[in-house]
Order: sequence, then structure tokens, then C-alpha cells
Amino acid sequence: MTNKRKEKKCSESIVQMTEVVLPQHTNSLGTVFGGVVLSWVDIAAAICAQKHCNKVVVTASIDAMNFLAPIHLGWIVNIRATLNYAFKTSCEVGVRIEAENALQQEHHHTASAYVTMVAIDSNGKPALIPTLTPQSEEEKRRALQAQRRRKMRLLLKDKQNSDIDD
Amino acid sequence: MTNKRKEKKCSESIVQMTEVVLPQHTNSLGTVFGGVVLSWVDIAAAICAQKHCNKVVVTASIDAMNFLAPIHLGWIVNIRATLNYAFKTSCEVGVRIEAENALQQEHHHTASAYVTMVAIDSNGKPALIPTLTPQSEEEKRRALQAQRRRKMRLLLKDKQNSDIDD
Amino acid sequence: MTNKRKEKKCSESIVQMTEVVLPQHTNSLGTVFGGVVLSWVDIAAAICAQKHCNKVVVTASIDAMNFLAPIHLGWIVNIRATLNYAFKTSCEVGVRIEAENALQQEHHHTASAYVTMVAIDSNGKPALIPTLTPQSEEEKRRALQAQRRRKMRLLLKDKQNSDIDD
Amino acid sequence: MTNKRKEKKCSESIVQMTEVVLPQHTNSLGTVFGGVVLSWVDIAAAICAQKHCNKVVVTASIDAMNFLAPIHLGWIVNIRATLNYAFKTSCEVGVRIEAENALQQEHHHTASAYVTMVAIDSNGKPALIPTLTPQSEEEKRRALQAQRRRKMRLLLKDKQNSDIDD
Amino acid sequence: MTNKRKEKKCSESIVQMTEVVLPQHTNSLGTVFGGVVLSWVDIAAAICAQKHCNKVVVTASIDAMNFLAPIHLGWIVNIRATLNYAFKTSCEVGVRIEAENALQQEHHHTASAYVTMVAIDSNGKPALIPTLTPQSEEEKRRALQAQRRRKMRLLLKDKQNSDIDD
Amino acid sequence: MTNKRKEKKCSESIVQMTEVVLPQHTNSLGTVFGGVVLSWVDIAAAICAQKHCNKVVVTASIDAMNFLAPIHLGWIVNIRATLNYAFKTSCEVGVRIEAENALQQEHHHTASAYVTMVAIDSNGKPALIPTLTPQSEEEKRRALQAQRRRKMRLLLKDKQNSDIDD
Repeated sequence: MTNKRKEKKCSESIVQMTEVVLPQHTNSLGTVFGGVVLSWVDIAAAICAQKHCNKVVVTASIDAMNFLAPIHLGWIVNIRATLNYAFKTSCEVGVRIEAENALQQEHHHTASAYVTMVAIDSNGKPALIPTLTPQSEEEKRRALQAQRRRKMRLLLKDKQNSDIDD
Repeated sequence: MTNKRKEKKCSESIVQMTEVVLPQHTNSLGTVFGGVVLSWVDIAAAICAQKHCNKVVVTASIDAMNFLAPIHLGWIVNIRATLNYAFKTSCEVGVRIEAENALQQEHHHTASAYVTMVAIDSNGKPALIPTLTPQSEEEKRRALQAQRRRKMRLLLKDKQNSDIDD
Repeated sequence: MTNKRKEKKCSESIVQMTEVVLPQHTNSLGTVFGGVVLSWVDIAAAICAQKHCNKVVVTASIDAMNFLAPIHLGWIVNIRATLNYAFKTSCEVGVRIEAENALQQEHHHTASAYVTMVAIDSNGKPALIPTLTPQSEEEKRRALQAQRRRKMRLLLKDKQNSDIDD
Repeated sequence: MTNKRKEKKCSESIVQMTEVVLPQHTNSLGTVFGGVVLSWVDIAAAICAQKHCNKVVVTASIDAMNFLAPIHLGWIVNIRATLNYAFKTSCEVGVRIEAENALQQEHHHTASAYVTMVAIDSNGKPALIPTLTPQSEEEKRRALQAQRRRKMRLLLKDKQNSDIDD
Repeated sequence: MTNKRKEKKCSESIVQMTEVVLPQHTNSLGTVFGGVVLSWVDIAAAICAQKHCNKVVVTASIDAMNFLAPIHLGWIVNIRATLNYAFKTSCEVGVRIEAENALQQEHHHTASAYVTMVAIDSNGKPALIPTLTPQSEEEKRRALQAQRRRKMRLLLKDKQNSDIDD
Repeated sequence: MTNKRKEKKCSESIVQMTEVVLPQHTNSLGTVFGGVVLSWVDIAAAICAQKHCNKVVVTASIDAMNFLAPIHLGWIVNIRATLNYAFKTSCEVGVRIEAENALQQEHHHTASAYVTMVAIDSNGKPALIPTLTPQSEEEKRRALQAQRRRKMRLLLKDKQNSDIDD
């Protein structure tokens, strides 16, 4: 009964996180570990998906991610997560990470990520989620791209499975 | 030379943080420790003041805070910090904490806080900061209240000093 | 039946905590975040109240706090929490924070705080707590001041409620 | 002068990490956050690359990752990182994550990841790294696949850059 | 019915952990706290014992430990835990800690430890564990030494109890 | 010039730490990890030695430790460290750990430990420390026992070195 699924907007689940880089986040060069950024990305994506789904969510996959510029000790990190598309029981969240050196007033685009989260019901099974109704042109473009990325993801997954045995 | 101070707007330093309540934040009732909320408040206020001042900042004081409602394990916490007024070398940041049970779609106002931060120059001395130009009616009202609260703070401080010897 | 409440002394709930300042507690100036001190204050107050009440306790409020002097990396921090007064279901805990540079043998008074904790029964409702019987002159003075502070707190709360709409 | 680069074997940089799942790693379902796994993957890959390069390394990218099975509280997690191929200043590390329920003696393959790390010299610039000489058939196969994945990565990166504007 | 106990080999429970020294692990000299090493030792020993016993285990005792050489910020730490002997409901785990400065390619033996872990059943009582069948000469030697150390431990415990009253 | 060494009392370096057991400190039985207790012991001993020596100190060794009783989630842990004896450049610290279930008003002696700490000068070399002048009968007894334990430690160390080759 897909027509019973609640309809929601992108604006209902946007997440804005701000972190400040502390000594425990950095390596001996004083730059943030990739893994720390990945863990902020995952939390932002999970909160965004949970706000959309109103269910507990778990991470199904994360697309390839490039770290474009190092983030240094004492900088401010802005993490913005937006729901791109709601599939049946899963959704794609886009996460953009920007770093800001407040003392020098510089901004840097650090990385973008696409995370797929699955909603889980009380029996631990995937659960049907609300649909997403994109409003603006940008939201519509994001929704289309999320659907395309999903197709490529499934193709790559098949290819990986035939290529790799570890 | 106060007239050389840069002028900035509230919108240039607004901070929005989102946290999710993990087991390490909770007591044996599964509710968040007050100290965890206080530490989120302090970080949000510091980031906000640093964005306004473009200098390292340290916490000078925090006004009395009431915890209006408990926050539970798994909830989402939204922390919003806004610059209320810029004094010479210090500024007042208003922080509002809201908790959200995404599974039940409930929102709760948890606490509000007023934090005074001081900007520090490279010699560890208080540094002159940009002035704040409030734009909207609400921003103007906040600026006025921040100045009133500062007067009351100085009065209370004098009173405390004469009352208390520990 | 207030006369059925157990009577306890200040000495039964005194808490002495010692922390050493690690890199994860400090900002880029190498001084402790205000939020870290606030979180130590809250834990010390909670342990003190729990020892007096023999119940789970939650933080109801913290009075205005001034940070008098910075605490540096590697310093020792002594936090002392004492029960000042036991109301019906809540109590005021006084917390004094002192920092010690053991290499230079310097001591600094960093801050004092007054935290109000509420005892919670197994249904999550406020629970009646033992009364406090102050013994020494200092304990009696603290008890009186705690009662006065409570009155001022209620007055300020009323004032804030009429002043502030965020 | 590529011929001056030191030659090293896979066995010189293999990393075996073991973690046990603690409450702080889990969500309210008692399963590990994706971000926690990602941060273990990044640390294992960084240690492996650092052992090969004998230089400080930073994360350049991580390939798409699927989370095949949930990991529960109390389980043991085995993370194995192997150097797949050494390019000029960067290398690909393969990371395999297995979870083990020691009480039930079950093993699960949780995820595999490919991480590209760059070696950094004392001026913060990419540095030439030792070459890798694969020995066994499996090591040779991994080396070939790493080179193929690198080509696909560059293709995907170009495609992403033309597709996506956020 | 000791003859009903399952027989297991050393190789079934070997644990190899790798850690990298982060700022949060170090004191103001930039060397690791003894307590951090002790806590890695305890986790490695617990995982090893849990793999052998297939039960929850708790730490009963740790033998005297000497820290032979300091471990510095940025170094890699290898922790290897091996089951030395399985008594009735407890077992001795040997833990060897080596530190590696990957930039200088130096290895240091930091410390060795012997930890006794007890298996616990679902009622919180000590539980019978599988026996250990040592295979190699070295495994047999370790098993013998573990039995000797146990006798010395019981002797020392008696001596301590008669000597010390705090 | 031993006679130039400053003389200090036990009371100048006593450390009292209080911790509350949080979810992150416990295993799946809800009891504290041995390693967490060991790391509290090490920090208390280091603070105590640093207060006596007024120098940076590092852990040289910890004597055998028995965990007498489990500590549960939500309990209060009291750690008391006292200087037992000051050798030339090292000192023995006695640490006593007691656990308290404040809801049931039970106290348990969990463990006692003897930690040897070495003072380090600015060149990283062992530094001469103040002597300890025990005052009470108990302090004198502790000083004697510390000297005896040191002899036994040296004997055991020799024995271990001849016995053990890993």
C-alpha cells in the first residue's frame, strides 16, 4: 500500500552540525584524521534519515569519498546533511563538510559524501519510510541524481562481487 | 580608537549544532547528565564568539541555567548559539537547547543559557572585538537585554563577593 | 510526615575529586574549556547529592558561575562538593574548583558553583530526601545562605520568565 | 630517480587490529554505528601505510563501502589492513572487517574497504614512497586490482565533477 | 566431570591488537600514560580469554609489571595476547607490548604482563572452561611457567594478607 | 648532596579521586573493566607523585593487583593515593580503591595497588626528589613496608629475567 506512505519535504530533515577540531581529533601533523570526518558524516546522515523516517536507522553504505583539503587543529567544521531521495525502506543522504579557519576567515570545501541509511522496525526488519517530495529545482535535481547514483551503486556492487574474493 | 572596530551582523556568527544522545552521555536513568548539556552549551558559545571575534576566546561566565525537561537516550539535541551583544573585549552569547524525540516526533525546550566569552590576543591579553549591529526587532531586543543582564551580573558579583567567603 | 525523614550530616556526603588536565580538555591556547569544568562540577555535585539522598539525582539548575583564572595543560584540578542544604525533594550543593600547578607549587581558585539537584524515585517522580543537620558554624552559615540563594533563584526565575521569550 | 626507491614486501606492513564493541560504540539498537567502523578502517589503513612508507600519511580517499551485517554490543571485531599497491606518493590499503560473537562462536564478514593514503614530507608536500613487491599469487592479484581500481576511481572522479555542483 | 571439558589450542585464542598513540594517551612529556598501556593489556587479555572460554570473563588479577621503555606520541603499539594455561574456571593470559616508531623504523619491547581472567556464567558464578592443549615446545614451556606463577601468586597473596592491613 | 634534598610530609601529596561508573566503563555484565580501574590507579598515583616531587613523573612499575569484588554501573568509586616512601629518583605510591553503591549504602574494598613512579627532569633523565618524613605510626609502617617491597621487587625482577624469555 505505497499510497499510504506519508509525504515529507527536504526541509523537515535538514541537519546542521558544527564541530571544533580538538587535539584528540588530530594526527601528529595537527590535521584531522579521515576517520573522524567519516564518523561525523555518519552521525549527521543518521540524524537526517531518522528525522525523515521517524524510525531507528542503520548505515547500509557510503559512496566513495575524496578528502579535498586538510582540516587543522582549532578550525570549525560545518557538516550539513540533506535527504536526497527516499526509496522504499532506505534513503540517500547527501553530506557536505566545510572547514573554517575563524581566525583567518577562510572557508574550505573538505568533502562531500552520499550515505544510504535503512529504517529498521521493532523486529529489526527494514521498514517502509515516508516518501520525499522535492520542492525547489535544486531538490529535484538532487533527487534525480540520487536515483542515478543508486543504479550505479548496484552495478558497481555486482562488478565488485565478481571481481573480488576477499 | 573604538571607531576603528569592524562592524558585524548577528547572522555572521550564528551556530547550529546537532547532537545525538549516546550511552556515554546518560546516567542510570537513561537521561543526559546536566554537565554534558553544559559542555555542549560552552562549545556552541565559543564557536559563535570565535566567528564574531576572529580571535581565540575563553569562557568568562555563564548565567544561571534551569534544566526544564529531561533528555533521553537516542534523542536528537539541537543547540543554537546567537551573538546577543558585543562589549569591548567580551560578548554575550545566547544559547537555546531543544531536544527532539524523532521516533515520537516530539520537541522539548530543555534550557536556555547566556554565556560571556572574552577574546584573547597572542599575548594572552583581552583583545578589542568587532561591534555587533543588530538588524531585526528581535536582534535589537536581545541586544538591549544583554546589556541589562550585564548590569545585573556585575551587581550580583559584588553581592556575592561581600556574602561569600569560600 | 516530615518527621520521618532521616537526618544526615554534611560530612556524610562530601566529595573530593582530582583531575589532571589532558590535551583533550584544552583549547588551542592550552587552557581548559569552560565546558569541561562545568561537566566536572556537575558530576561532583551529582555524586554528593546521591550520597546524601541515596537515590538517583538529576540536575535542576546551576547558578551563575564566573571563571576567575585559566587552568593550563598538565595542571591538577581539585573539585570539592559539599551539601549546603536539603529542601524537600531537592538540595543545593556547593562546588569549589581549585587548580594547582604542581611543578611551580602554585594554587589558584578557579571557580565556585551552586548546583541544585532533585532526587528521583523509581517512577521518575521527585522523592523526599533526608534532612541535613549542619554541625559547625561554617556549615550553619552555608545552610542559611543556601536558603537565601533559593529565594533569589525563584525571584530571578519569575523575572526571566516575564522578560525573555526565547 | 625511481630506481632509488626502496623495495618492500606486503608482509612488512600488515596490520591486525582487534576491538571489542563497548556501549559507546552502539546506537539504541545495540549495534555499532557505521561511523565507528569507518574510523577503525581509517586508523588501520593509516598504520599500514605508515609502516610501508616510514612517513606521516594522510587519507586521500575511501572507496564505496557496504555494511553487510550488523555488529552487536560485546562482539569482537577483527580489522586486517594490507598494502595492495604503492603508487608514486600514494598507496592503496585493503581493509577487511570481520565480527565475531565469541559466546556463540559465530564469525561474520562485515565490510571491506579500499583506502588511498598519501605520504607527506616535513614540508607538508607529497613524498616518494618505497615500491611494493608482491610475492604470492594473491598479492599479485591484489596489486593488479588496485591499479584497476585506481583507474576507475579517476574516471568516477571526473564523472562526479561534471555531474555534481555541490 | 573434567573429562567433558572441551579441548582447545593456543592458536584458537591469540589476539593481536594495534594502537596508534594519540594526544589523548600522552602526558605533558608526550609519552604514554602507564594506565593507558594497562588498559590496552586488560582488553587484549579479556578478548583472548573470551575467545578461549566462549563466556563472559572478568579480570581477577594482574601480575607485577615493569615499564621498560617510554612510548611516544605518534608511535604504533603492538599488543599480543596468548593463552598460557587454562585452570578450572580461570586462565592466565600472557600479554607482550611492543612499540614501533615507524618513521625511524625502531622497535622497543615496552612491557610484558600476566593477567588472570575468570569465566562467568549467566548467574554471575565462575564457570568451567575448556582445557588448553599446548602444541609447540614454546607453548608447553609457557603452560609450565603459568602453573608455577600461579603457585607463587597464591604464596604472595597469603604473605600480603598477613603483612598489610590497608 | 642528599642533605640538600627538601623534606616533605605524606599529607602534602595525598590524592582523593572520586569517579562514577558510566556505561563506557562497563562490559556486557554491567561491571567495570579491570583496565579502567588500572587506569584510574595510574592517574591517582601519578598525581600523588607529582605533588611530592614537583616534577613530571612516569610510571616505572605496578605490583601485582587482585580485583577483590566487582564494581557495577552507577556506583561511586573512591580512589585514595598516598606516598609510601621516597627513594632517590623514584617513589612508591599506595593506592586503595573502594566502591560504593550509594542507593544501597554499601561499601566494598575493590583493590589495593603499589605503583612506582620516577621523576624526570627537563632532559628526560631521572631527577632527585624530596625525601619523605613519615609522621604517624601508620605512615612509618607504610614506609618500612615500601622499602621491603622494593627489595622483593628487585628479587622477583631478577628471577623473572632468568626464567622468562618472551
